[in-house]
Amino acid sequence: MPYIALEDHLPGITGLLEYSKGTAQPIRELTQFLLRGPSTLTEAERELIATVVSYGNECTFCTTAHTAAADLLAGDAAISAKVKQDIDTAPVSHKMKALLKIASLTRQSGKSVTADIVQQAKNAGATDVEIHDTVLIAALFCLYNRYVDGLGTALPADPDYYNVLADRLVNHGYTRLPQGYDHLKK
Amino acid sequence: MPYIALEDHLPGITGLLEYSKGTAQPIRELTQFLLRGPSTLTEAERELIATVVSYGNECTFCTTAHTAAADLLAGDAAISAKVKQDIDTAPVSHKMKALLKIASLTRQSGKSVTADIVQQAKNAGATDVEIHDTVLIAALFCLYNRYVDGLGTALPADPDYYNVLADRLVNHGYTRLPQGYDHLKK
Repeated sequence: MPYIALEDHLPGITGLLEYSKGTAQPIRELTQFLLRGPSTLTEAERELIATVVSYGNECTFCTTAHTAAADLLAGDAAISAKVKQDIDTAPVSHKMKALLKIASLTRQSGKSVTADIVQQAKNAGATDVEIHDTVLIAALFCLYNRYVDGLGTALPADPDYYNVLADRLVNHGYTRLPQGYDHLKK
Repeated sequence: MPYIALEDHLPGITGLLEYSKGTAQPIRELTQFLLRGPSTLTEAERELIATVVSYGNECTFCTTAHTAAADLLAGDAAISAKVKQDIDTAPVSHKMKALLKIASLTRQSGKSVTADIVQQAKNAGATDVEIHDTVLIAALFCLYNRYVDGLGTALPADPDYYNVLADRLVNHGYTRLPQGYDHLKK
């Protein structure tokens, strides 16, 4: 049961974006720019950063939604599963391993990110913009995870919800985020 | 020394907003709406929420900047100092005490916010929108604090910087955030 009066049929972030449209618009735009805008990181890689942070923050709605989006983009569900288990042995590039570690440290605290891990990312070929975007995506999902869980939002009743949501996030992006399950089913 | 190539004369968040203008725009708009938009919480109260979260996250730049803004708005530097020390005994309303506790819990983790503390806020007169905005302001400053510290941004050389910055934040808001110290000195 959410802590404030949200629409029953809108689980997780969807009910909050409907509840507060004035804040929803810049949040959607920031997410669209960071996760779908021009970047040398693929959309799958950026969804993987969102997934690792949401998983670390134990946010069920965000973890499941962004895992589904990352898997759909990668065409492979094993990568996200292995990254969540252990970044070091996951089947991603050395650059991505370093960036995912920066994201995990950012999740803990901005002060946890060290010059050493940033240098490891640079040595593996990461650019300043990629490091910037990794930190900001991680910080943004620290916002999302707290927003979704801090207001006690509900999970969808049907687990297939996440696949439909992932399809929308992959094919339509964040500025046209679906309004809820009923709408998604149409 | 910042982890990426930021302009030397732009400390804290100011160098990051200049570095990445595409993400800066929605971040500024979200902040302006939440901290300066129409609300039954005063601007001083909202800056106090930002201060408590930044202080808990040990982000020196954000804590000092928003303490200065909260103090300027309140016309009293004792309130923010006492709130940082102990919310329970600080000279703020029962409603604000409950909201500041919700903000502190949100800072730790969204999952730390309980139905009980939300009910305490409601009993003290907090509306759903005030509870929503408190959680989202806390979540937003979890983003800011991680962004500022996760990229190793510099502190201003002159402590008076924060007073000049606070004056701008109070009198011009977040969508016209100053570009840096040199500019502020003009």
